[in-house]
Amino acid sequence: MGEELKEYRGQIDRIDDDLLRLLNQRAALARKIGHVKGESTVLRPEREAQILQRMVRNNPGPLPDQSITQLFVEIMSHCRALETQLCVAYLGPSGTFSQEAVEKRFGHAVLGKPCNSIDDVFHTVESGKANYGVVPVENSTEGAIGRTLDLLLQSHLKVCGEVMLPVHQCLISRAAGLSAIKRVFSHAQSLGQCQSWLNTHLPAAERIAAGSNTQAILLSLEKHADSAAIAGVMAAANYDVPVLAENIEDDPRNTTRFLVIGDQEVAPSGKDKTSLVMSAPNRSGAVYDLLAPLARHDVSMTRLESRPARSGIWEYVFFLDIEGHQLEPKVALALDELRQAAAFVKTLGSYPVTT
Amino acid sequence: MGEELKEYRGQIDRIDDDLLRLLNQRAALARKIGHVKGESTVLRPEREAQILQRMVRNNPGPLPDQSITQLFVEIMSHCRALETQLCVAYLGPSGTFSQEAVEKRFGHAVLGKPCNSIDDVFHTVESGKANYGVVPVENSTEGAIGRTLDLLLQSHLKVCGEVMLPVHQCLISRAAGLSAIKRVFSHAQSLGQCQSWLNTHLPAAERIAAGSNTQAILLSLEKHADSAAIAGVMAAANYDVPVLAENIEDDPRNTTRFLVIGDQEVAPSGKDKTSLVMSAPNRSGAVYDLLAPLARHDVSMTRLESRPARSGIWEYVFFLDIEGHQLEPKVALALDELRQAAAFVKTLGSYPVTT
Repeated sequence: MGEELKEYRGQIDRIDDDLLRLLNQRAALARKIGHVKGESTVLRPEREAQILQRMVRNNPGPLPDQSITQLFVEIMSHCRALETQLCVAYLGPSGTFSQEAVEKRFGHAVLGKPCNSIDDVFHTVESGKANYGVVPVENSTEGAIGRTLDLLLQSHLKVCGEVMLPVHQCLISRAAGLSAIKRVFSHAQSLGQCQSWLNTHLPAAERIAAGSNTQAILLSLEKHADSAAIAGVMAAANYDVPVLAENIEDDPRNTTRFLVIGDQEVAPSGKDKTSLVMSAPNRSGAVYDLLAPLARHDVSMTRLESRPARSGIWEYVFFLDIEGHQLEPKVALALDELRQAAAFVKTLGSYPVTT
Repeated sequence: MGEELKEYRGQIDRIDDDLLRLLNQRAALARKIGHVKGESTVLRPEREAQILQRMVRNNPGPLPDQSITQLFVEIMSHCRALETQLCVAYLGPSGTFSQEAVEKRFGHAVLGKPCNSIDDVFHTVESGKANYGVVPVENSTEGAIGRTLDLLLQSHLKVCGEVMLPVHQCLISRAAGLSAIKRVFSHAQSLGQCQSWLNTHLPAAERIAAGSNTQAILLSLEKHADSAAIAGVMAAANYDVPVLAENIEDDPRNTTRFLVIGDQEVAPSGKDKTSLVMSAPNRSGAVYDLLAPLARHDVSMTRLESRPARSGIWEYVFFLDIEGHQLEPKVALALDELRQAAAFVKTLGSYPVTT
């Protein structure tokens, strides 16, 4: 072995010794915090968000910010596991985008619990069988996932965080080529995310919505000579179906946003948003009036989503994301005024903003 | 926030600053090593094994050795990914024990490539579509996985490492209870691992071998009123089938051993084993004679497995694992003498021992 190589390896060994010592010191401190009076909660989302933000802000490289974030997520995951192993429910099966979202947020020293519906994720957390749940709430191309919004309205659980996950779609099929394809199966969301591509490359193919992308693959395989499915590259590999076209999503920044739900109110991290749902009286200008308190207190709204109200009492409910934490004075004031004006306001939770 | 909590958090912040600096210094050094003349290989299994051994040996706690190992696997994974993202083929689908084995060995900054058969894993690595492959080779309860042995005999690929993975089995079914179960589906290996449990708890149930535990679940669901499957807890969750009994493997230390295969000869790490395959002439005492060189040079044999020879030239081939690296003098001498005595000897590879 050359002298140069030896020298570098020696330097790495000394760094590893320091890392070993520091990781254990960190874990010992995390454990001490767990024993401080009143600190019974293993996971402090606002604190973890602050740590990750600071690490990325101060990252000198060469490790990319993404590696730094992932490594610190894992470090915190293992420090937490020293106290309790968290259980996190998500929309399964494993190998899906939802599982990726869990790992991105919680690291690998947690127990993932795949559920077979969004309802089931809520139920699993509500009944205490999991500490947190991760559910998709909107896609940057296709918009809201209605079922999640409906369940947020009903559930006593709080939104404790969000996870942004880049999503890339593939056209997969055992057909000889694009020209042979007469129908395309996928979840309605995925079909929507790839509309332009389908219009350009498979204008004549029938588009058939399936319950999930996994089910779409199975359906397409039943008639594989002239069928294709749209799914993630991982799902394609799982079923060993050739990928005919990659990254076919209309917007290359195609991102799915997930919410972390749990029975916990998250403290301010310094860079938060607040989700709420409210109803407006059924008269013209009502929504505009409701938003006036936000404008008055200089609170930005980052999202407004309407959903038909299932209760029948109001015609619509509105899901809002606003900047800031509900404990910040101007947000608290705006929310107070909203509550006076609206027939119904429910705060779903304040939580750290992520990218 | 209390003073005590503030103080601890401040200490953690200072540790995180050090970790951030050290992780980047480490990555910069790893990159420099990549540019040293003659160091074109991104992954040095012997070096990584030495680092992990040293970290565990020196681990003062409170983080358990397992956390330290996993964290350093991730750190090395991200340092490697700065140069090249490794692609690792494994027996899919995702969510299986094989995927866990990949993550345990390579960390998460690699691209996992699920294949639908062991043959396919070999082929994917042989054709250069993946850097390494991970294949199961034996289970502590049920013994060898014959197909892997057969393929090792034929392939030019080398064994570059091993991964030990604890394996826990569950009985899963939608039946009301054990008494309702008339048949149990599973892979032959898994049925074998749970024999005693089945004899005790389901003596009358028919045992039906399936192609995989996943297929077993699907078969059991077709007739769910009186059928069950044996599978891992993750697979059970994926298909949302209730777990009727956990940890039903006969030996709680039930472990599957995987081999890492690749087009690479691994240098000595100081604590290695060597796998080889050889044939014995078809006469009594032949195997005993063949093993004499090992005894003579004080080389311990940790495993001996016989397989019918497919070529028809010899009746059996023998798979041996011996302690030590083929470059160690006494191992080299013993191998030389083996080669003179046996009709056929093929060294499959020397690689670091793991636990």
